[in-house]
Amino acid sequence: MLVIGERINTSRNPIALAVTSKDEAFIQKEAKRQAEAGADYIEVNAGSFMDKETEYLKWLIDVVQDVSDLPLCIDSPDYEVIKSVLPLSKKTPMINSISLEGPKLGEVLPLVLEYGAKVIALCQSDHAVANSVELKMEMAGRLVEAVTAAGVPLGDLFIDPLVYPLGTDSRSAAATLEAIAGIMNRFPGVHTICGLSNVSYGLPNRGLINATFLVAGIFRGLDAAILDPTDKRIHGALKASLMILDRDGFCTEYLQAFREGLL
Amino acid sequence: MLVIGERINTSRNPIALAVTSKDEAFIQKEAKRQAEAGADYIEVNAGSFMDKETEYLKWLIDVVQDVSDLPLCIDSPDYEVIKSVLPLSKKTPMINSISLEGPKLGEVLPLVLEYGAKVIALCQSDHAVANSVELKMEMAGRLVEAVTAAGVPLGDLFIDPLVYPLGTDSRSAAATLEAIAGIMNRFPGVHTICGLSNVSYGLPNRGLINATFLVAGIFRGLDAAILDPTDKRIHGALKASLMILDRDGFCTEYLQAFREGLL
Repeated sequence: MLVIGERINTSRNPIALAVTSKDEAFIQKEAKRQAEAGADYIEVNAGSFMDKETEYLKWLIDVVQDVSDLPLCIDSPDYEVIKSVLPLSKKTPMINSISLEGPKLGEVLPLVLEYGAKVIALCQSDHAVANSVELKMEMAGRLVEAVTAAGVPLGDLFIDPLVYPLGTDSRSAAATLEAIAGIMNRFPGVHTICGLSNVSYGLPNRGLINATFLVAGIFRGLDAAILDPTDKRIHGALKASLMILDRDGFCTEYLQAFREGLL
Repeated sequence: MLVIGERINTSRNPIALAVTSKDEAFIQKEAKRQAEAGADYIEVNAGSFMDKETEYLKWLIDVVQDVSDLPLCIDSPDYEVIKSVLPLSKKTPMINSISLEGPKLGEVLPLVLEYGAKVIALCQSDHAVANSVELKMEMAGRLVEAVTAAGVPLGDLFIDPLVYPLGTDSRSAAATLEAIAGIMNRFPGVHTICGLSNVSYGLPNRGLINATFLVAGIFRGLDAAILDPTDKRIHGALKASLMILDRDGFCTEYLQAFREGLL
């Protein structure tokens, strides 16, 4: 299970404040906490600063890499931003994201190839919201085709079927889980990934819903997630799921996480 | 999802104390709390009092039925005890349990038929511990055969594949989940049921493991569970799972449970 630590994102107020005040220590503490909690990638996102996104993202990348050897997940909706910050990445990064929208695929895929990067691909196009299993599977198929035709190994592709808030579409989570199982089954070697928090938008006790959705995803084959590994509820759900799936011999990781206060 | 409220069991010290001191109010409060938290059946168990089990179980049944209209789940390892308390049950009860051990099946099945009761059947025999998917499925098949041959409708049968503690058998939970899916698939109309707490025996943070196992079970088709509906973690996992599975239109039940402080 690949964990992308989501905390360093300027849509979170404390991060935005740390970025504008150049508080390196705060950002570095966030990076280290996530690394200690088992993150495999540290995500960096400065997308809330439209005009200064590139400048701030470069700063974040340098500041994080000064204290962490983990690879980065570079998250931006803007091709130009991704292109200009990629050379700063010391380890092979993950790019978040491509989709079937507009020119994204054609623009970003050459960067993925050039850097040998991992890439997150969203089941999203200009013409349709993928709100059914069928649409999610159809878009996943087109993404697999385009990415592999460009020469990117299937194992570098992380497909996100995109879950929508249960409060506005009660079928979305079930359809997403079905799509995860379907994608893992139809395209052996590919990865599936999901951001957790969208599913619970607008509902109370969001941590409960996010953790439950994570467990359900793992049991349908989800093998990567963008999450907060320092959140005890999420971390606990992850570790308990892997133990229940017999992927934690002698409960070693579970017991270690318990001793470290992570669950 | 059928919920059997597990709290009125003399293996819990406060219940044992209430029984020996004839504290009707305490037992009735436990029954009402579980009913308000959505229990479909109230389990009664006085098995820890070997000599006085029948006397205490009769008292429990009367005391609970004085305040609750819910059917009871009568839990005893002893055929004679079950036989002597069954006439007290006002609603059609559930009997917990039969298995392939000793004379249990032959003794209890006539009672199941006589009372038109629901019955929990454990994947357990004199000769083997069902610790693999294959053994669980094989025993489930023998239980289905025996129970239906005796004339009990398949829909009255609740098969418990029996999960063993992860701390001593790391494969047990995964095998149980596989068996749940297999049983639901092979015998359409039958139910599967599970006690939750065994899975976490000996491990820290048991509530986390039990709740995660419940979520995993529900997503593999489990349609009944013996649990504590007043436990927020368990109740929350249950309601969030049903909402994610699109079995809670407009999130009505989830939101109601939140308002009632149940999650």
